[in-house]
Amino acid sequence: MGSLPLELFQPLDPDVFSKESHAVVDFIADYYREIEQYPVRSQAEPGYLSKLLPDTPPIFSEPIDTILEDVKKDIIPGLTHWQSPNFYAYFQANASTAGFLGEMLCSGFNVVGFSWISSPAATELESIVMDWMAKMMKLPSMFLFSGAQGGGGVLHGSTCEAVVCTLAAARDKALSKIGHDSITKLVVYASDQTHFTVHKSSKIIGIPPCNFRVIPTTASSGYGLTADAVRSVMKEDISQGFTPLYLCATVGTTAIGAVDPLLELGQVAKEFGAWFHVDAAYAGSSAVCPEFRRYFDGVELADSISMNPHIKWFLTNMDCCCLWLRSPTELVNSLSTNPEILRNNASDAREVVDYKDWQIALSRRFRAMKLWLVIRRYGMVGLMEHIRSDVGLAKHFEKLVKMDKRFEVVVPRRFSLVCFRLKPRFDDDDDDDDDDDDDDDGLKINIRLLDAVNSSGRAFMTHAIVGGRFVIRFAIGTTLTEMQHVDATWKLIQGIAKGLLLADHS
Amino acid sequence: MGSLPLELFQPLDPDVFSKESHAVVDFIADYYREIEQYPVRSQAEPGYLSKLLPDTPPIFSEPIDTILEDVKKDIIPGLTHWQSPNFYAYFQANASTAGFLGEMLCSGFNVVGFSWISSPAATELESIVMDWMAKMMKLPSMFLFSGAQGGGGVLHGSTCEAVVCTLAAARDKALSKIGHDSITKLVVYASDQTHFTVHKSSKIIGIPPCNFRVIPTTASSGYGLTADAVRSVMKEDISQGFTPLYLCATVGTTAIGAVDPLLELGQVAKEFGAWFHVDAAYAGSSAVCPEFRRYFDGVELADSISMNPHIKWFLTNMDCCCLWLRSPTELVNSLSTNPEILRNNASDAREVVDYKDWQIALSRRFRAMKLWLVIRRYGMVGLMEHIRSDVGLAKHFEKLVKMDKRFEVVVPRRFSLVCFRLKPRFDDDDDDDDDDDDDDDGLKINIRLLDAVNSSGRAFMTHAIVGGRFVIRFAIGTTLTEMQHVDATWKLIQGIAKGLLLADHS
Repeated sequence: MGSLPLELFQPLDPDVFSKESHAVVDFIADYYREIEQYPVRSQAEPGYLSKLLPDTPPIFSEPIDTILEDVKKDIIPGLTHWQSPNFYAYFQANASTAGFLGEMLCSGFNVVGFSWISSPAATELESIVMDWMAKMMKLPSMFLFSGAQGGGGVLHGSTCEAVVCTLAAARDKALSKIGHDSITKLVVYASDQTHFTVHKSSKIIGIPPCNFRVIPTTASSGYGLTADAVRSVMKEDISQGFTPLYLCATVGTTAIGAVDPLLELGQVAKEFGAWFHVDAAYAGSSAVCPEFRRYFDGVELADSISMNPHIKWFLTNMDCCCLWLRSPTELVNSLSTNPEILRNNASDAREVVDYKDWQIALSRRFRAMKLWLVIRRYGMVGLMEHIRSDVGLAKHFEKLVKMDKRFEVVVPRRFSLVCFRLKPRFDDDDDDDDDDDDDDDGLKINIRLLDAVNSSGRAFMTHAIVGGRFVIRFAIGTTLTEMQHVDATWKLIQGIAKGLLLADHS
Repeated sequence: MGSLPLELFQPLDPDVFSKESHAVVDFIADYYREIEQYPVRSQAEPGYLSKLLPDTPPIFSEPIDTILEDVKKDIIPGLTHWQSPNFYAYFQANASTAGFLGEMLCSGFNVVGFSWISSPAATELESIVMDWMAKMMKLPSMFLFSGAQGGGGVLHGSTCEAVVCTLAAARDKALSKIGHDSITKLVVYASDQTHFTVHKSSKIIGIPPCNFRVIPTTASSGYGLTADAVRSVMKEDISQGFTPLYLCATVGTTAIGAVDPLLELGQVAKEFGAWFHVDAAYAGSSAVCPEFRRYFDGVELADSISMNPHIKWFLTNMDCCCLWLRSPTELVNSLSTNPEILRNNASDAREVVDYKDWQIALSRRFRAMKLWLVIRRYGMVGLMEHIRSDVGLAKHFEKLVKMDKRFEVVVPRRFSLVCFRLKPRFDDDDDDDDDDDDDDDGLKINIRLLDAVNSSGRAFMTHAIVGGRFVIRFAIGTTLTEMQHVDATWKLIQGIAKGLLLADHS
């Protein structure tokens, strides 16, 4: 298929669609087969791609084979391979066949379900699948459409969107009582472990940056937020004329997988009239397994809860974030619009959900198709097995770290994330030689270890700073990761560490 | 593939991936082949799907064939078919093979390019393709990365996101001078034709709803905003102690495709120090054709400009919105975060773009892959042909309407949207019989006409109210639409109109 004569330009011809799509399926399947050949973290230098691609668009159409050759030659070397079994950085973006198939159907139908009428199945499947997810996580019925207490859920593109929308709902609910001029008196609360998205979202919705409280956590509470700390800050704020607006608690923090105590925090939020949001972006998926459900005790006090089936842990390709609300009406009050151009009988009769009023944008993808496909294709048994298998690998890695006296696990592992480091002054010989690393609590040697692993191209991990200590994060959950990969990566880490330690003491 | 024994749970096995993906490609190709058999607007009743699907998720995995059968049996009847050639509602969401292939690669790689290092190719391809798009639209070099004046572009998921982000940037720039307490003094300006997303976004970022000015337009300016009207409202606001923050001009409004005069409006915005945003969501694509480029004269005065290659007009499957900024630094100042967990050498050295600071969310899809594929597969020639072909069909439809004296084209057609209606009192016999429609300026009969067309399942159109008149919008642009479909739909409209008129006068 070279450049086509104008009169034949049919960019959705089913036969061409079929032929070229099959070619891309084969291309992606081969990519997965060969993925271990590529450096996990791209070794490209900044600006590499502009040296390879023309700086103007092509005049004429190009055949798909040529384009795929260029993807292989020019794009793949610049990818950091999130689907590599040796990707342990950030949190995983665990793709799956079912997630991919769901994306294909979403993109193939390409419907825009902003209102019920604009594609009833898109809206209704989303409501059904949100109830399914809530049931799998054993959320209280108040968050379900079928719970008949007015709750319900929606699929967003990201946790940040979920936080922006719930913050806006909380803000408008508060300002309707105290007047819009008081927007500068509203305060948002989070811990020093809370994802920065809460701070960013709070800025986006117009809360003054100085009204964002970062409450410190410590090792004694496992880096969880304590009710006493929150209560004390809220009391102080009220005495200064501020209004507590929004408290975000996290189940499975980004840096180290810490868990805030929902029950105690929910009670404090109620006490002070603040919106209580639970961010379970990472660990929400674990609630499908009974052994992890206890971390969600107290979620019945939440106004809203979000979790990510996409980047994180539920085998759902990007993008897909679940948000449930106790009272969607509060969200809709803040975000709804009713332009003439979208008016229709079903919406006017108020007998349907119009998801455009549950989110930032008007347009929306048919994400429910994807999540529905993942749940059906793998079933609860498969999804539980997936979570447990990752946690099992993390336990295995934790054991390996603990068996090597040069290393330590820095914070308790709760899910599939292990935070470890080379111990500072591991050798206990207390000699006062010129080993600078003795004075920096292991900072430099762990940075060197991490850089060396990542530069090897054989694994990719990232870091965090916890209680002042630099730790290496080993986040397990990429779909292709198996025991053999964890073992090989541990040997790689040990080998590099050995070299670094020898160099330091030579 | 039934339920699998636990030890074999491999949800990204390349062979299974390949087999099941091929099956879904065939399923979608058949869907396109059969699409004209389905009612364009779903005929489902509210709640239809919960009667068909179980209310709990499956325990065990289900085979893909069963799931696809259910998609056909349960989901497709609930879809409003945006890819049907007889879809003329809202604006088109024009899918294409290349757009679909791009989505497949995006979903298959499933990389998360929030920072450059997290997938250099995702960031760099996006910067390159944004420059390509800008060059195709002949935007001034100040909006290009290669323009060396500090500009650049980013892909968002929706216009609303682009507006929220630019509003936040404008707000923070203004408040950095006058203090955060003045947030209640900031005013946003738009016309009565501006997309409601600007009002919604303005609320989201904390501007009091009463500080949103809706400036009326009239037929005499083709429903475009006039500089005099804006100047007068801004002057009045300043005299009341308010600060003009943000003016949104539109090229191709949603209701009727009107065009605001960018040059004059840009000058007023500069005069009053307001951020000037150009929303070219719909008609931005037309700028690739020289004959439409004049509508963008004055864009050099804009602080930001957005357009949608996705729902609208550039053959790019959902989602994809282009946003260019004269000074991305202002956006980044408002939206940037620098958490320890994402720190890396490339970002610390400030030698790369980190797109997380150009958008609301942290996570982001590899949308550039899709847009790059569309541009390469079809080339500038193909894309221009696509725009011209749609405009040609709209001209043809316009001619058909004008040839039938019972109908009228209500506002001048500029692009591929025709706004028409059955004339009120078309028969000129001035009899004072009991025809109620004589008194409502054609409202009831046009509502009945629209309802009847949509209920027939043979086409789907929507409406707008312009200058108090109810008009039917005929938006051409679905990829599969050909002359034969436009002709058949016109005959359908004529036939239904004939019946209605006969009934009215019997």
